[in-house]
Amino acid sequence: MTVPLTVDFVAGRQGAWSIDRIVPVTGQSLPPAACLSIVTTGQPPVEAVAWQLKGTVSHARYSHRSELVELAARQEGLGRPASRRAVLIPIRKSAAWWALAQDERRAIFEEQSRHIRIGMDYLPGIARRLHHSRDLGEPFDFLTWFEFAPEDEAPFDAMLSRLRETAEWSFVEREVEIRVSRVQ
Amino acid sequence: MTVPLTVDFVAGRQGAWSIDRIVPVTGQSLPPAACLSIVTTGQPPVEAVAWQLKGTVSHARYSHRSELVELAARQEGLGRPASRRAVLIPIRKSAAWWALAQDERRAIFEEQSRHIRIGMDYLPGIARRLHHSRDLGEPFDFLTWFEFAPEDEAPFDAMLSRLRETAEWSFVEREVEIRVSRVQ
Repeated sequence: MTVPLTVDFVAGRQGAWSIDRIVPVTGQSLPPAACLSIVTTGQPPVEAVAWQLKGTVSHARYSHRSELVELAARQEGLGRPASRRAVLIPIRKSAAWWALAQDERRAIFEEQSRHIRIGMDYLPGIARRLHHSRDLGEPFDFLTWFEFAPEDEAPFDAMLSRLRETAEWSFVEREVEIRVSRVQ
Repeated sequence: MTVPLTVDFVAGRQGAWSIDRIVPVTGQSLPPAACLSIVTTGQPPVEAVAWQLKGTVSHARYSHRSELVELAARQEGLGRPASRRAVLIPIRKSAAWWALAQDERRAIFEEQSRHIRIGMDYLPGIARRLHHSRDLGEPFDFLTWFEFAPEDEAPFDAMLSRLRETAEWSFVEREVEIRVSRVQ
């Protein structure tokens, strides 16, 4: 990914994904809505919007070359026909996290918490795309979008449990799960 | 800095800084203008604007803790009364740079190019603030703002020469220097 792609996640009355439930994990939740749209034109709809979150698909912030090579060999892209389920997880980390230096954040992220390694265990079943929001003045720092087949929902839940037990997650001060199913 | 601050650099007819010259270093330059304003309200003027660049003051991307400690001990802030000169340097790096992994970018940035170390040699004379623009869909990836006393212009030029000879700079595909003086 060399050109940053800005993506709007728009919750409202219409959209390619039907919202099954919105789960407040940590901190304030998001308002209910029927559907979720993923808009990459930079021109999201302005009417009948329940909420809207923006993020940029950008360069890797922590991954080393060896990790990127392994990820590229194992992961599959978004939009697979079997991926009838998806989850959007907006996360905000604390001021304490952002005050850390790069070497400190990397050590917590991977050497201590095994964030990349845990995600790797669920490839290629759980496809993901990370969107960076913090520099955009958004209420969350990251929006992660996961896509998988219905039978991969249990492994997905297991992955979330493992991540939420890590040292990295002690810096998460707001987290919401938006569980969706493909409409058609 | 825990809360990202979005800053607009606005070139036009008015502003606290008078533009002395705009130097195209690599790639396309920017149009001429009389003055430069630094707007932190998020509401830059819309009339009589020659050009406008936006960036976010955000967390450190490469610095290790030991480097942040040393920088904090040596550097001074913006707005010193003696800082009558300033330079805005917008930079865009190549797709090849952004395709590198974090460990590769760090190695080129500091272990090879000594970017932090070179900047350190000119503290506290040359004050600086880095603004990240890449995720905002801007034409440049970074906007660096330097402030110094008129007698520090020669050391500033020496610092730029050293940085531009580094391996890191081989990834710079667009760079412009906007040299300004404080109006009052």
